Amino acid sequence: MSEGRVVALSGGVGGAKLALGLARVLAPETLLVVANTGDDFTHLGLAISPDLDTLLYALAGIDNMQTGWGRRGETWTFMAALEALGGETWFRLGDGDLATHVERTRRLAAGEALSAITDDFRRRLGIAARIVPMSDDPVRTRLETSEGWLDFQPYFVRRRCEPAVRAIAFAGAETARPYPEIIAALGDPGLRAVILCPSNPFISIDPILAVPRMRQALRDCAAPVVAVTPIISGRAVKGPTVKMMQELGLAADAASVARRYADFIDAFIIDRADQAGADVPGVALMPADTLMLTLTDREALARTVLAAADAARKRRR
Amino acid sequence: MSEGRVVALSGGVGGAKLALGLARVLAPETLLVVANTGDDFTHLGLAISPDLDTLLYALAGIDNMQTGWGRRGETWTFMAALEALGGETWFRLGDGDLATHVERTRRLAAGEALSAITDDFRRRLGIAARIVPMSDDPVRTRLETSEGWLDFQPYFVRRRCEPAVRAIAFAGAETARPYPEIIAALGDPGLRAVILCPSNPFISIDPILAVPRMRQALRDCAAPVVAVTPIISGRAVKGPTVKMMQELGLAADAASVARRYADFIDAFIIDRADQAGADVPGVALMPADTLMLTLTDREALARTVLAAADAARKRRR
Repeated sequence: MSEGRVVALSGGVGGAKLALGLARVLAPETLLVVANTGDDFTHLGLAISPDLDTLLYALAGIDNMQTGWGRRGETWTFMAALEALGGETWFRLGDGDLATHVERTRRLAAGEALSAITDDFRRRLGIAARIVPMSDDPVRTRLETSEGWLDFQPYFVRRRCEPAVRAIAFAGAETARPYPEIIAALGDPGLRAVILCPSNPFISIDPILAVPRMRQALRDCAAPVVAVTPIISGRAVKGPTVKMMQELGLAADAASVARRYADFIDAFIIDRADQAGADVPGVALMPADTLMLTLTDREALARTVLAAADAARKRRR
Repeated sequence: MSEGRVVALSGGVGGAKLALGLARVLAPETLLVVANTGDDFTHLGLAISPDLDTLLYALAGIDNMQTGWGRRGETWTFMAALEALGGETWFRLGDGDLATHVERTRRLAAGEALSAITDDFRRRLGIAARIVPMSDDPVRTRLETSEGWLDFQPYFVRRRCEPAVRAIAFAGAETARPYPEIIAALGDPGLRAVILCPSNPFISIDPILAVPRMRQALRDCAAPVVAVTPIISGRAVKGPTVKMMQELGLAADAASVARRYADFIDAFIIDRADQAGADVPGVALMPADTLMLTLTDREALARTVLAAADAARKRRR
């Protein structure tokens, strides 16, 4: 059973940390990482897939630990030259990072699927785990805010998540087709576990769940489904999760995140700091140290979630 | 008369040296530099205009003196990352240079004309002289070689000019419209001079002359037209000029270049090394030091060609 495949759903930075931990403690070819593509956008004519790239860079060991995004050893000559020419500079593109976007844009224009391009990139970067977009069809996260409807990156980067969020939509999700390998893996009786990485539930996990058949496939899945809290002591490690929960009228705590997934998860990894008093009917809340500062932390949390999944499977029997 | 406008026709490196000299010895706003765009091509999805860029970088003082192309203080992180992803690396694109191509591509896709984009770039780069493409319509230099027909950059960069050239064509030239300001300037009775910079006659000057109305406008021009030799002692300072002349069955000397322009030039600046015995009917051959190693050389040659033009005007009267 421990030889079975593991599916991990992930957004960017926080999710990529656990995905890296999983890739290191599992036989890496057993891991299938499903990336949110709701953040994808076209900028300066280039097709940019922030969460796919963060996963690629993290699993290849070339991610920038200082910024939490982009590449290690990056240079910024392009941005400086672009600024001198009057170009848009609110979205920072490093020189090495640009190669990913230029080459992806070229290959998409030549008719290749995002999944095929991503798979080629991860092999060339020496990554044994599979990394796939939730769909090859475009899904675009949009936010209704105090300043009106905003596309994701203008909200997230340009406006730094400052406008209050009232609603979130995933344009294109209704007609997007899930990447077939994901549905096949979720339906595989030999699947070991499904992991929801500690990613923002609204803008990283929800877009994946909004793809048709995805949520139902998780409900029907024979393997245990375990989610990891993105919130510790009422705060997100990174990003606007708590601010968004407050704006959307939700209790800004880990249990509130667990309740969003209660129809399809078996267990929820809550931080030790938050274990007292929390209760979510039908979901086993399992305390652990969820803050991942070091590589050792990533591996330890990966082992914890896999053990939680294996324990959930035993309980089911 | 010395206040009149000067038009300079130019290719890349050699031409840009004299264009810089002219911009420095003239009131710069009186200079109109007409760039060859036959070398333009789309690579990695990006619209690249090598001669326009060489002129922009040279006149802005940000050209790379070591390589003779590209930008000063350039970094190469993009190329290294592109290579790791399996992208095409035969055409070297520096990180800062990329900004020019990405921003130009974006603006062309948004419907702006190449001339308008170039004019905005040169103002942002602090260049007072005007730099314009020969046409806003695409003209593409193609070469019939010992290996068949090749597009310009695959011949020039990828194959390093190795295949023997049998014929040269300028695809799109028949229907290209000259940039209107060029024809207007050539028809202006107040024009002081037209200068053909020391550029390759076949792949830098001929594409400009192939644009409809251009050659006739030079023949009809009231101002003196002066060309500068790209050949010194039977050798080109840079590039395949001599090799191409031999392959095309032409005498590989400066007078042979002068004869190509005899229908519309008044004077031809020949290097002092080549003055003995040369004769081209109807063209005043004027010896000068044409090798431009330093900024002082560029300015000195600029003064020489302007003096030659002014002298030719007096002779005409």
